[in-house]
Amino acid sequence: MTLPITPHPPLPDTLIEALQTRFGSRFSRGESIRVQHGRDESIHTPILPDAVVFAESTEEVVALVQLARVHGVQLIPFGAGSSVEGHILPIHGGISVDLSGMNRILAVHNDDLDVVVEAGVTRIQLNTALRDTGLFFPIDPGADASLGGMAATRASGTNAVRYGTMRENVLGLTVVLADGSVVRTGTRARKSSAGYDLTRLFIGSEGTLGIITELSIRLHPVPEAMSAAVCAFPDVDAAVRTVIQTIQLGVPVARIELLDTLSIAAVNRHSQTTLNETPTLFFEFHGSEAAVAEQAALVQDIATELGGRDFAWATRTEDRNRLWRARHDAYFACLQLKPGARAFPTDVCVPISRLAEAIAETNEDIAQVSIPVALFGHVGDGNFHLVVLVDPDNPRDLAEAEWLNERVVGRALVMDGTCTGEHGIGIGKAKFLVREHGAEAVAVMRTLKAALDPDNLLNPGKILPPLNAGD
Amino acid sequence: MTLPITPHPPLPDTLIEALQTRFGSRFSRGESIRVQHGRDESIHTPILPDAVVFAESTEEVVALVQLARVHGVQLIPFGAGSSVEGHILPIHGGISVDLSGMNRILAVHNDDLDVVVEAGVTRIQLNTALRDTGLFFPIDPGADASLGGMAATRASGTNAVRYGTMRENVLGLTVVLADGSVVRTGTRARKSSAGYDLTRLFIGSEGTLGIITELSIRLHPVPEAMSAAVCAFPDVDAAVRTVIQTIQLGVPVARIELLDTLSIAAVNRHSQTTLNETPTLFFEFHGSEAAVAEQAALVQDIATELGGRDFAWATRTEDRNRLWRARHDAYFACLQLKPGARAFPTDVCVPISRLAEAIAETNEDIAQVSIPVALFGHVGDGNFHLVVLVDPDNPRDLAEAEWLNERVVGRALVMDGTCTGEHGIGIGKAKFLVREHGAEAVAVMRTLKAALDPDNLLNPGKILPPLNAGD
Repeated sequence: MTLPITPHPPLPDTLIEALQTRFGSRFSRGESIRVQHGRDESIHTPILPDAVVFAESTEEVVALVQLARVHGVQLIPFGAGSSVEGHILPIHGGISVDLSGMNRILAVHNDDLDVVVEAGVTRIQLNTALRDTGLFFPIDPGADASLGGMAATRASGTNAVRYGTMRENVLGLTVVLADGSVVRTGTRARKSSAGYDLTRLFIGSEGTLGIITELSIRLHPVPEAMSAAVCAFPDVDAAVRTVIQTIQLGVPVARIELLDTLSIAAVNRHSQTTLNETPTLFFEFHGSEAAVAEQAALVQDIATELGGRDFAWATRTEDRNRLWRARHDAYFACLQLKPGARAFPTDVCVPISRLAEAIAETNEDIAQVSIPVALFGHVGDGNFHLVVLVDPDNPRDLAEAEWLNERVVGRALVMDGTCTGEHGIGIGKAKFLVREHGAEAVAVMRTLKAALDPDNLLNPGKILPPLNAGD
Repeated sequence: MTLPITPHPPLPDTLIEALQTRFGSRFSRGESIRVQHGRDESIHTPILPDAVVFAESTEEVVALVQLARVHGVQLIPFGAGSSVEGHILPIHGGISVDLSGMNRILAVHNDDLDVVVEAGVTRIQLNTALRDTGLFFPIDPGADASLGGMAATRASGTNAVRYGTMRENVLGLTVVLADGSVVRTGTRARKSSAGYDLTRLFIGSEGTLGIITELSIRLHPVPEAMSAAVCAFPDVDAAVRTVIQTIQLGVPVARIELLDTLSIAAVNRHSQTTLNETPTLFFEFHGSEAAVAEQAALVQDIATELGGRDFAWATRTEDRNRLWRARHDAYFACLQLKPGARAFPTDVCVPISRLAEAIAETNEDIAQVSIPVALFGHVGDGNFHLVVLVDPDNPRDLAEAEWLNERVVGRALVMDGTCTGEHGIGIGKAKFLVREHGAEAVAVMRTLKAALDPDNLLNPGKILPPLNAGD
């Protein structure tokens, strides 16, 4: 979708000179670099930043903020560029702050099960580095996102049902504020009652309140045993009811994922798997050998009673990895269902008791559009995604996608759910913010933004809807 | 300790008349009522509020805020009065807002494992009401605190090592702000990436940013099996090393509590138990029958190897309850060690790898004072408490207690821990806030307070140290 881009003056020459002096070749106005930083994984039309700075330390981010604020130039933090709601688009112009060079793992505290990293470290990089420690970092959005970006969007993924989201797994942050000050939040203690929770204030703030440059993160012991399974169901409802019963019984399942028929077909084609093309749950169990066996047997009983069949187990590491790689590639697999298509992704999250109803009604909506729509997600949390495949040049496709998005979000909000479980607001979902939180809560969010970034320098136009835009 | 109380004018007559009209007998200036609202469980000298209002609905709190702000009169939220850092003392005068009458359980969502309550509902009241649902609320500070107060102080307790603190277990809040607006935060979805985390902003804000009137709270399924044990150790170090190994192995222990020799002696005397008077761990395991047996065996192996002996198991509900009642009464048991004494309570939390060192050095400090000091706590989180028994009229006792507090907190901060794991800042720990978080982070906290409560009407003087008071 094409966005209104606010006309803005070019970067002042004095700023350009200062940035060239300070950052050398790590300050770029070249078109190819700007193109790389002018789009994310969303449907939104790319918007090129005026320049890109590749920052390599907190001190460099401070220097950049201080230069930019003198000139009133806006800054857009950029990690891996894998956001899906237009988070990194410079809709009012400005400089993209690329943090991917801040990719050092600063300290691994094996005994405390935590790690200190720079914001550009990605989740796969971190887990690779942890390979010999007996510890791992569980949060896995589809993309190999940066940890700074994952904190900024309050990301989660397939393991969140057991291990929580970035909200629960970040112990502390280093953040550069709009005034150039550096704030360190949290400690390495597991819990604290010492003052306002600044860590959680910045998590999910999408770069609008400060630029995250370092993170202390909780790790988890690699379980003694892990076992994964795939189970096919006659219909989505039977699969979802299996999920609901599993959660309500308190089974500490590590992953419980739903893929609908179209998603499975896409996965089979993309990943050369031979899964039954019918609604399917992917499970994983973590624990001791005995606990895993017990959990697995219990869930298999529930599934079988509800019509699940062809339970296929994967206990060898390589088989499990192949299974979860296929699951993680589902988004890209779906993209290939319609050649030349772009994905219009959306996600919502509802209370678990409403999940079956939410998905059933969504499927009725999907039946009314002409474009392919895949449905999958982290159903143990009540979170599911639509991947709506559109020709971005076809207004009817876009209108259908918008209609579906409106339907699925509106339904989630009526069910006391949220307009996004893990993607974030960006620009794509700002229009739902008041409907979800109410005018009073959004007014508080505006107050916080104005207090911490009075000149609106940091990622402007994200999260908060334009004033007077109604709902 | 006697606090400086700021001179302030009496309540204006017009306000008194308006409050009498609005609240009738639920507005009180009677001395006995004011005395009840002028002290908490802390060592601080009582300070009487100018009046007390017993609010019974969010609308009444709004009405009170609107009247008070017109007259510039300050408001101090009051739940059960069980805070331990002077949170509820009206140090600048003002009206105590007693929310204990807001004690309705508004909705129990069995299928979603959550509940909606008014702020005055206490944790025991909630669990009593849940008795037949198969669900429970795990967070258990020693006192039967109100849930609003527990959210305001980010409380935790013995189960936090497994189930988290109020931070992880509150889904959403209703909060009355200083301008009289009512904000509803969060949804009933398990996770969300929709905008700033206002829920976590108010949790731990100790009534300084808004008055919490309702909460949506996560519940947990009552485990199929529960088993508790007590194990005596030759010294504190052996006990603490058992804790560290248990946590580092990732055993999902539900509770793991340390009581030192003096605490055990106090418990024996108070609760008529016959525990060995030596450093002792209390454990509890939750899960399936098999999982509980496996966890218990593993931890017993660790403990035995480190010198633990006399493992005594309690699997029957009444035996477990007796054990945990004794543990919960430890604070009051310790109070009785020195007739006429008051407790100067403090708590800190450190990374688990530093716990043995922190406790050993603290015990060296304790050996240097003349007053009795009991040490116990939620060691699975790295959190421990001192109960320092003082004669509040004896300056030497108070000086020794202050010295100990300074030593234990200073040590926790050097170890990258926190000055309070669960008690909160109140007035007692405000002096440590800058040392823990740094001047920049505390400046952000001041900015947030000024943005949301520009006239400093809500619980003034709490959390944030007086300006220019140095560290």
